[in-house]
Amino acid sequence: MNHIPLDFTTIDGELGIAGRKASDWVRQAGDTPLFVYDRAIIRQRLDDLRTAMPADVAIHYAIKANPLPALVEWIAPLVDGLDVASAGELRTAFRVGSGRRISFAGPGKRDSELAEAVLAAATINIESAGELERAAGIASAASMPLHAAIRVNPPFDMKGSGMRMGGGAKPFGVDAASVPSVLRRMTQLGVVFEGFHVFAGSQNLSAASIIAAQAQTIALVAELSEHAPCPPPLVNIGGGFGLPYFAGERPLDIAAIGTALGHALESRPAILRQARFAIELGRYLVGEAGVYLTRIVDRKISHGQTFLVVDGGLHHQLAASGNFGTVIRRNYPLANASRFSDPDAMQANVVGCLCTPLDRLGEGVHLPESQVGDLIAVFMAGAYGATASPGAFLGHARATEILA
Amino acid sequence: MNHIPLDFTTIDGELGIAGRKASDWVRQAGDTPLFVYDRAIIRQRLDDLRTAMPADVAIHYAIKANPLPALVEWIAPLVDGLDVASAGELRTAFRVGSGRRISFAGPGKRDSELAEAVLAAATINIESAGELERAAGIASAASMPLHAAIRVNPPFDMKGSGMRMGGGAKPFGVDAASVPSVLRRMTQLGVVFEGFHVFAGSQNLSAASIIAAQAQTIALVAELSEHAPCPPPLVNIGGGFGLPYFAGERPLDIAAIGTALGHALESRPAILRQARFAIELGRYLVGEAGVYLTRIVDRKISHGQTFLVVDGGLHHQLAASGNFGTVIRRNYPLANASRFSDPDAMQANVVGCLCTPLDRLGEGVHLPESQVGDLIAVFMAGAYGATASPGAFLGHARATEILA
Repeated sequence: MNHIPLDFTTIDGELGIAGRKASDWVRQAGDTPLFVYDRAIIRQRLDDLRTAMPADVAIHYAIKANPLPALVEWIAPLVDGLDVASAGELRTAFRVGSGRRISFAGPGKRDSELAEAVLAAATINIESAGELERAAGIASAASMPLHAAIRVNPPFDMKGSGMRMGGGAKPFGVDAASVPSVLRRMTQLGVVFEGFHVFAGSQNLSAASIIAAQAQTIALVAELSEHAPCPPPLVNIGGGFGLPYFAGERPLDIAAIGTALGHALESRPAILRQARFAIELGRYLVGEAGVYLTRIVDRKISHGQTFLVVDGGLHHQLAASGNFGTVIRRNYPLANASRFSDPDAMQANVVGCLCTPLDRLGEGVHLPESQVGDLIAVFMAGAYGATASPGAFLGHARATEILA
Repeated sequence: MNHIPLDFTTIDGELGIAGRKASDWVRQAGDTPLFVYDRAIIRQRLDDLRTAMPADVAIHYAIKANPLPALVEWIAPLVDGLDVASAGELRTAFRVGSGRRISFAGPGKRDSELAEAVLAAATINIESAGELERAAGIASAASMPLHAAIRVNPPFDMKGSGMRMGGGAKPFGVDAASVPSVLRRMTQLGVVFEGFHVFAGSQNLSAASIIAAQAQTIALVAELSEHAPCPPPLVNIGGGFGLPYFAGERPLDIAAIGTALGHALESRPAILRQARFAIELGRYLVGEAGVYLTRIVDRKISHGQTFLVVDGGLHHQLAASGNFGTVIRRNYPLANASRFSDPDAMQANVVGCLCTPLDRLGEGVHLPESQVGDLIAVFMAGAYGATASPGAFLGHARATEILA
């Protein structure tokens, strides 16, 4: 058996998700494959975060991780802000909350997207001097205020991150060295200054790296604030909180991060005294709550290896197939959901239904004796699954998504 | 300037596609980004193939490469068969031709997909002993004949292929050693035996490797045919014909392949004398005919490097971003379509609009002096673009597709 996240239970020998058997969820969906997102796991994750983090730190949800409208609607009241990355996501967020709680980041915002954000009174995280001019022009033409923060490309990165978003030449944000001049221009343009956004990395499992990046971020923001029209009302220090996807990885020590962040904020420079600090999390909030269920349609042997071919695949689970942001493919946790309590009795390769060698969900996985018709569960499927995969590839149906 | 495929022309200083300026295509689409597929280039490619290949070799189109309905409808009469990989693709193919010209391959065909194929009288490429039983049961229950070929997992691969589909343990097809027993079972079940399908690799630029694999395939199929209910009516020897995506690569020498294939077929064993031979091509037919047009929305400098941020990205061009089947990212050919005749005057990183460091379209590209508003063309975008990318990622709009 692989590393199965959290406390997924067994019900009548099957995998239990949110108190029901895997086969019940399939029946409800009508067909495989499907995603089931367990709200209770997300809520527990949020509770644990609130306990670990300083009380005055805001928690934002980055809806790119899972933009399912029902999920966004449900989570919105439980978090302090929604971070969006396109006009499409802005609309999803705006349906469930006011623009003042929404911030919009992204290196390639179109004029039409900036206009939507201005009209929604969302905070635009300015990514370049040029974007500031465009946004200000659009706001002026609409006779609307421009609520803007500066996204800073920090001169450091978060060590050990799955993706590094700072340090060196990047398309994201304004280089720290150029921030003073952009701040001066914001003052000239009469922009409503909302603060700073610094995102140094993602998917990091080292509390020490995150603590170090947060400390550097606070120091950087304090320095940059000297050039701002006013002290920053909000400082989004990013996220980077990782999940243990692979065997041998350990959950992030959020208690250590919370304690260190508390100390860092207590001793923060005076210019940041009134600032609200926010952490921005997507994957960390919803990733472990999702299970992808797919059915075995064939079992075959090739050159002595057993292959279980399922009716899902990389068209819904690109990251799990190892084709999105990873150099070396490793197995996501995976189980036979129909025989969840059975002991392992075979080793198999679990492959998707697509006619490409890229479509691998598990290599050399230990499983109970598994047959055609059994359900396979891929865990860690709550974030960057359904929308971050090539759903139209090879003309297969989309996967149903259920908020449980 | 990068290696630009074929003879894209300049019209009024802009990139010309199918006789019109890039900006005209954008006007027609209404917005960027968009794909334009030039029919004349596809037709030329087909003409060149017909000239190079022996006259009696059939050319099949694997519609997974580009399933745009208008394109499939247009190309269907120009080819000898359509190869599909799902019920969705089967429906697309069936709309434009009879089932007898359609063959259906894929390692994870569902019962419902097998039933659709049986009812359409399509040829099912059987991938395992288990699938044969399922398909035969479905055909029997429907009182319909089962038209089936065997997809063989060959004991060799095609050296130097972008993706290896044979040699060793694979989810695709029946191991050659097991084919005789599956053929016997087909006879018992009264299946209409349609022949063999052998696909040893894809995206190969070495004529020598393709020639070697074709010779091995013919020998293998001759050997296996001894066990068949009748000599194979059709032998699909696969494809593997690659395109030169990257600097320094050279177009495939199809004349050499055609000459060698002609000799191999002339001297083929007697049991294959009546067989029709087919090559199955997707990418090779349509890949170079497509151009992806996207507009620069920001130009910025970070740590001395210039970034051009466009309104498209990996949500339409996953492969060009280096995140689909490649270990080391290299630039697809790319140009400033608005200033196509201008000399190179800058070096820049062209990045997509998505808020992820994975969204890179060109690194260190030499371009004319490029400004916000200019159109960037990514070439080689006719295959595995729109449908092989995570179109829903970050909630951006889909790209328009135009068959020019």
